[in-house]
Amino acid sequence: MREIQLLGATGSIGSQALEIIEEFPAKFKLHSISARHSVKRVLEILSRHDVEAVAMAKEHEETVQRAYPDITFHALEEGGLEQLAASAPSTVLFNALVGSVGLVATLRAIEAGKDVLLANKESLVVGGELIKEALKRSSSDLIPVDSEHAAIRECLKGSSPEAIEKIVITASGGSFRDLSKAELEHVTIEDALSHPNWSMGSKITIDSATMMNKVFELVEAHYLFDVPYDSIEAVLHRQSVVHGLVHFKDGNVLAHLGPSDMRIPILSALQGSQRQRFPTLFDLTAHGRLDFEPIDRERFSLFDLGMAVANKGGLHLVTLNAANEEAVRLFLEGHLGFVDIERIIKRTLDHFDNDNHLTLEKVLAHDREVRRYVHAALLKQ
Amino acid sequence: MREIQLLGATGSIGSQALEIIEEFPAKFKLHSISARHSVKRVLEILSRHDVEAVAMAKEHEETVQRAYPDITFHALEEGGLEQLAASAPSTVLFNALVGSVGLVATLRAIEAGKDVLLANKESLVVGGELIKEALKRSSSDLIPVDSEHAAIRECLKGSSPEAIEKIVITASGGSFRDLSKAELEHVTIEDALSHPNWSMGSKITIDSATMMNKVFELVEAHYLFDVPYDSIEAVLHRQSVVHGLVHFKDGNVLAHLGPSDMRIPILSALQGSQRQRFPTLFDLTAHGRLDFEPIDRERFSLFDLGMAVANKGGLHLVTLNAANEEAVRLFLEGHLGFVDIERIIKRTLDHFDNDNHLTLEKVLAHDREVRRYVHAALLKQ
Repeated sequence: MREIQLLGATGSIGSQALEIIEEFPAKFKLHSISARHSVKRVLEILSRHDVEAVAMAKEHEETVQRAYPDITFHALEEGGLEQLAASAPSTVLFNALVGSVGLVATLRAIEAGKDVLLANKESLVVGGELIKEALKRSSSDLIPVDSEHAAIRECLKGSSPEAIEKIVITASGGSFRDLSKAELEHVTIEDALSHPNWSMGSKITIDSATMMNKVFELVEAHYLFDVPYDSIEAVLHRQSVVHGLVHFKDGNVLAHLGPSDMRIPILSALQGSQRQRFPTLFDLTAHGRLDFEPIDRERFSLFDLGMAVANKGGLHLVTLNAANEEAVRLFLEGHLGFVDIERIIKRTLDHFDNDNHLTLEKVLAHDREVRRYVHAALLKQ
Repeated sequence: MREIQLLGATGSIGSQALEIIEEFPAKFKLHSISARHSVKRVLEILSRHDVEAVAMAKEHEETVQRAYPDITFHALEEGGLEQLAASAPSTVLFNALVGSVGLVATLRAIEAGKDVLLANKESLVVGGELIKEALKRSSSDLIPVDSEHAAIRECLKGSSPEAIEKIVITASGGSFRDLSKAELEHVTIEDALSHPNWSMGSKITIDSATMMNKVFELVEAHYLFDVPYDSIEAVLHRQSVVHGLVHFKDGNVLAHLGPSDMRIPILSALQGSQRQRFPTLFDLTAHGRLDFEPIDRERFSLFDLGMAVANKGGLHLVTLNAANEEAVRLFLEGHLGFVDIERIIKRTLDHFDNDNHLTLEKVLAHDREVRRYVHAALLKQ
């Protein structure tokens, strides 16, 4: 029986993780959850699961405790995520948060010796070096839930990391892959949110359209599999049937395929080494045709920019991520056009210096400073 | 250091196996070889390798022994293959023979506790049950060299066989995949021998054009991976970039890809668990497009027929294989048209009864009887 702390329990990945946990009651047990504001959904989860602790915005404490007085309540404003992640060392932490807010929880869980199932890719984008250091001092495993990285992990089963020649992850190209740069000037939020292959949360759907998501995933791959950037590649694959490939140094190449169903990587991360039965329909001949193209770096200029930042590493990755998070949020709130996302990120990167000696405090302080800068810069426009 | 007995050393697979053995002199050593008649090529191999034993047709004994008096000579007519396979228990047997002649050597090597690297698929087609029984009583491993099965083996690394939901191997469709059945009436030997993707020996190239090769490979997969026929499938994949796939029961699907280069599965079989560096060029975006279609069982009627035989198992598989071997030989010698291969196989299958209680003696006697029948039937035409 695996006891699970689920951060971001009411989001897209969190909800699918709950589905899987409920599908295998003899294998998995929900230990605790976090959610910012979705009280109704949280109460519904608590009615179905014997949960020990909840982390939410402080304003919901009374509502939750009135209904469930025995549950420990952690207020997010008072370090609730950290407290949850650092507690209950026999659990595993499933981090399904969106954004760099997930970093501290990831670090605290690793420090507590817990395995971390990581859907929160921004943890690794802004804190890759810190997480790498923490893992060295811990017995924790860091297990990817992102579909591309879960794919790579499957390909690597039974092979040693030294045998890797190259890692390839695929990119669908997102909602606007068939538009020119000029055409992007006029797209709407609704256009941006209709992903051709995956049904995902709104932030990642926008990141997918700008290809920033693929930058983050290459950074994630770099840290998860300890592979240099010149051995990691993204290719455009319109059908999203192949999620990732590993070229081994002996000429063998393995690829991971499957339907666009996040429950598969979620189960893979949760189940450990023993494969549970989870029937899904997948027929290669029904797809018929699979296409693979290099990524057009002029068209996807944010990918190009992002990879330059990734290669340098350091504080600039925090700048990139925070500027992106804020720009995407402002776009989703209707304050910005789609192409402004790139303009804001560029301007923010130009404004801040890089620094390759990171501490958690420095990262968190810089993250806040960049967000302030983005909002201030926008007001001045 | 792995010492290798290489049966069929001068054939297509045998020559490529020698290339790999010579590429890694610190890892592999050639212990002994077999070849029927290619004396010149054998002497050339003996000049480069410190070989202990040779099996050839008796007529070449004097030539070989005059040049290399210290080498043990086994005459093929006097059970040379068997003697070689049963000897030197610290070696591994690389069986690159073509046809059911390879069966006895495979069995003797397993009985001697040696690992068998099997490129001779007919061993498993005619003697699958016998080999399975022999493996139960032995510590031997049976390791596939066929590209599709080597592909499946790579996909299975790190997973238990119980986790398999389905095995899929790909078929290029062979030389005549774009011809209708009617058009097959007029094809020539040269047409048949020009395979679109692979450069292989002549027998397998014809088997590929008739799709009999795919029947044999499904039988091979059935025995190698202990999977029932309704969990094994072949799909048409024109580009031969994906060689095989495993659907796991948890929804994960792994595929093996690579260039059409038999040296990759040969090295994979030889190297054991440690991957050697063997640089090959493979770029998915250079291929650009991959297609997958169900196999048209009306067009490839021999595939349909073969699979019916495979599902029943027993002596009929020996009939199928022997009739096919003789028909292909007669086609390659110019005595038959391409479509006669199927006619002869059908007629021969109709003539013989099935029998599911097999012994080696029964298999070998039946194999000879079927070949006699094919030749007699042809004379009567």
